[in-house]
Amino acid sequence: MTASVQLDKLIKALQIQPGVGPRSATRIAYHLLDRRRTDAVELGQLLVSAMHNIKLCRCCRNYCDDDLCRICKSPERQQSKQLCVVESPSDVEAFEQSNNYFGRYFVLHGHLSPIDGIGANELGLPLLDELLAQGTIDEIILATNPTVEGDATASFIASIALRHNITNITKIASGVPIGGELDNVDQKTLASSLQNRRPFK
Amino acid sequence: MTASVQLDKLIKALQIQPGVGPRSATRIAYHLLDRRRTDAVELGQLLVSAMHNIKLCRCCRNYCDDDLCRICKSPERQQSKQLCVVESPSDVEAFEQSNNYFGRYFVLHGHLSPIDGIGANELGLPLLDELLAQGTIDEIILATNPTVEGDATASFIASIALRHNITNITKIASGVPIGGELDNVDQKTLASSLQNRRPFK
Repeated sequence: MTASVQLDKLIKALQIQPGVGPRSATRIAYHLLDRRRTDAVELGQLLVSAMHNIKLCRCCRNYCDDDLCRICKSPERQQSKQLCVVESPSDVEAFEQSNNYFGRYFVLHGHLSPIDGIGANELGLPLLDELLAQGTIDEIILATNPTVEGDATASFIASIALRHNITNITKIASGVPIGGELDNVDQKTLASSLQNRRPFK
Repeated sequence: MTASVQLDKLIKALQIQPGVGPRSATRIAYHLLDRRRTDAVELGQLLVSAMHNIKLCRCCRNYCDDDLCRICKSPERQQSKQLCVVESPSDVEAFEQSNNYFGRYFVLHGHLSPIDGIGANELGLPLLDELLAQGTIDEIILATNPTVEGDATASFIASIALRHNITNITKIASGVPIGGELDNVDQKTLASSLQNRRPFK
């Protein structure tokens, strides 16, 4: 408990951030008060406006400021017939940074998890259904996380795609990371890299 | 760069927090958007109001909501004749948590550092001078950090105290941490613990 009630509240509130516990929250609060009051006011205002204004793109469900996101607005992307389905907006960013994919995206914001009440509606699958019904997509790339839940979600999405007669359904490769050393790779990944071996070209 | 300009700005702004780099800022922003929008709005509002409203106690310069802080308001503390001088408000909190000191405090908010333009005025020493002139203090406990700058600041404050005929000037002990093991203690601390040895009671 500090000498200021407001400061106590601020220290508590800062802890909603993942990775920020009581000690770091205290350090952050004092740092901002001591040295960066103006920046902290700006951060506060940005937090409020971002939480109120950032919404989901009506086409791909990525976070965006308007109705359509930057990627969905781009004419080149609109013409693409590839659709990459990911679990979270940060996955879109990761693919964009790899600078190797120029198709469209669909963001699920999670994976199927009936126990937590997360089903088809929560993942926006009715919207995906509509999108596929338009007939503009001819390849679905499943890029959910390589976990049990991610794989189950991928299978479910594949079944939706098949219903729309999209047969070109692919899944991103799992295997050893490029540039890594084999003895640092975990057993499951190594086993998967062996199962999914390809003809050497 | 994400699909939202506001999100990009938020991720940048979150990095004013010490210990938060681009990767953690991105993780924090997505976490707040995905799961804790209401809490994040509250955090934003608290940040703005705290930065505008938290001021320095007119008596001890600790952070507080009103003119006088919680500690200075307490009648028992007001009667104490001990004054503990610390560099930062978090030091006050640390002493309060140790639950062993029941006197008054004075917070410098830093240490003397002429090269950064931090002199007597920036540390509130004219206020300390006024306080000592009232003649209500008979012991000054110097609890600045055990660094070169902290020691220099302590010496300067001691000279002010002497000017007010306060001769009972003490400095908190440096030595081996309680409960620690000697071979984990750094050389300087160990040397200091030897120099400052006391008669065994």
